Amino acid sequence: MRAVQITEFGGPEVVRVREVDEPRPGPGRVVVDVSRCGVNFADTLMRENAYLAATTLPVIPGGEVVGRTADGRRLAALTDRGGYAEKAAITEASAFAVPEDLDDVAAVALLAQGLTAWWLVRHTGRVRPGESVVVHAAAGGVGSLAVQLAKAAGAGRVIATASTPAKRELALSLGADAAVDPAAADLTGALRAANGGEPVDVVLEMTGGRVTDQSLAALAPFGRLAFYGMAGGVEPEPVAPRALQRRSVTVSGFWLLNAFERPAVLAGAYAEMAALVTAGELRVVSGGDRPMSEVRQVHEELRERRTTGKLVLDPRR
Amino acid sequence: MRAVQITEFGGPEVVRVREVDEPRPGPGRVVVDVSRCGVNFADTLMRENAYLAATTLPVIPGGEVVGRTADGRRLAALTDRGGYAEKAAITEASAFAVPEDLDDVAAVALLAQGLTAWWLVRHTGRVRPGESVVVHAAAGGVGSLAVQLAKAAGAGRVIATASTPAKRELALSLGADAAVDPAAADLTGALRAANGGEPVDVVLEMTGGRVTDQSLAALAPFGRLAFYGMAGGVEPEPVAPRALQRRSVTVSGFWLLNAFERPAVLAGAYAEMAALVTAGELRVVSGGDRPMSEVRQVHEELRERRTTGKLVLDPRR
Repeated sequence: MRAVQITEFGGPEVVRVREVDEPRPGPGRVVVDVSRCGVNFADTLMRENAYLAATTLPVIPGGEVVGRTADGRRLAALTDRGGYAEKAAITEASAFAVPEDLDDVAAVALLAQGLTAWWLVRHTGRVRPGESVVVHAAAGGVGSLAVQLAKAAGAGRVIATASTPAKRELALSLGADAAVDPAAADLTGALRAANGGEPVDVVLEMTGGRVTDQSLAALAPFGRLAFYGMAGGVEPEPVAPRALQRRSVTVSGFWLLNAFERPAVLAGAYAEMAALVTAGELRVVSGGDRPMSEVRQVHEELRERRTTGKLVLDPRR
Repeated sequence: MRAVQITEFGGPEVVRVREVDEPRPGPGRVVVDVSRCGVNFADTLMRENAYLAATTLPVIPGGEVVGRTADGRRLAALTDRGGYAEKAAITEASAFAVPEDLDDVAAVALLAQGLTAWWLVRHTGRVRPGESVVVHAAAGGVGSLAVQLAKAAGAGRVIATASTPAKRELALSLGADAAVDPAAADLTGALRAANGGEPVDVVLEMTGGRVTDQSLAALAPFGRLAFYGMAGGVEPEPVAPRALQRRSVTVSGFWLLNAFERPAVLAGAYAEMAALVTAGELRVVSGGDRPMSEVRQVHEELRERRTTGKLVLDPRR
């Protein structure tokens, strides 16, 4: 079958389409004909061996697929690897049934990105009615869904950040009440200003470095910052527990892998979001439906942060 | 009236009983005849000017009183200062009505310590049924109540730490399922061992230094550490947000002062705990009902961590 297999770590040049053996499913796994596979920022980190989990070579990257089993069931699944391929072996117990009226891009977008956005809003950030929520990288896959899910959870004011005017415009069109450039010299002040001069209740943050530092400083008493990635590649300042005490604030880490231990919660979240999308109440921003043969360019665009919304690859092209 | 007034910062020798003017209540405040005032570790920090909030001199320390108004109402109140005195001016809106069948020591114990324990278990730590909870300093004022409130919240296993065999015995008698010496060289391992070899879900921590560091390492995925004090005087290691991500764990600070903004929540918590105490379902550990003339010795004992449970002073003695 056709697949992207990495045999050495490196830049976008190491991702190439090759002919490889089809996967053989182990116990509890089933093979799907992949209709679309998702591309995530984490894939670029895995490619460089810079991911949270160590990677062994050779590896077929790709943690998200939608497709059909031999007996015709349409499933979407998160998988640890193997997604960039015509066929993938997925864990049947953690696969989600996909309604026929949900398109492939949305079916994939609701996996890593949808489930992350859902978990951040509902669990890690625990957004309560009336609270203010900052969503960084709000035009991205997670951010674009988090803006909408925060509003649906009753957030009083959603403040989006995004790096270009077009991305900020997109965030506003998704329901954000304000949009801020994260490059602002005084980002703390800019976030508070966007919240009517008040400190903010929740921050969903995946940038790292000074964005994390200055967002933490913008929190109100009992505020929560959920840190779920470091796309900028720069570590934020370490946080002194004593500094958290003064305003009773919280810093949480979130990595979707840990949520795999709670498959029933994830299945409920997926079904809920799928229903919202088909009802027209949750909009998936497509970042492009691309042939797998363009995988190298796609990785380059992702790393240069030129993309917006969910990127998928068609392994048959 | 008789009161303890500090005119210079320093050790226990600076707390002395003097004759001072009675307080004049400002708007929204009412004077009570103080029946008992509470002594807290924070008072020793204020005495040394080492508290989270700066202190101006001269000051009458003491943040907790129970007493009666001129019109006979029995009230308990948290106050920023002025407690170690025969009369204190308290904020009427944030005072709690005290049932007549609740004794003075309990009425005071449910203020800073009770409300802190309640908030940590219910809000900051969000203890859910079946979860494991580590309570450090479990023989202390907050800890002894937190052990019981965690069990009442349905905690599956409460692991107490305390520095002496007698204190650990006390924690077990309050319902803790296991008791650990926090001086264990491998405290992370000791906490996990006390939890059947599993990592723990919630840690309520007020010690600082290596106890915080090693407790954080003992957390399970989605675990929460609530940091509400640093009695040992040593800062824990600062926490890298990225390190929190790997297991999706949370570090929260808590300072009761921030909860004053939510008086209705605190009033509900106080009334709930008062009802539990009078029903015999929540035990207040008395650390001593002492004459105010012994305030210097009391501060020495507190600083040397020789005390257990709630210490109160009688300003008329």
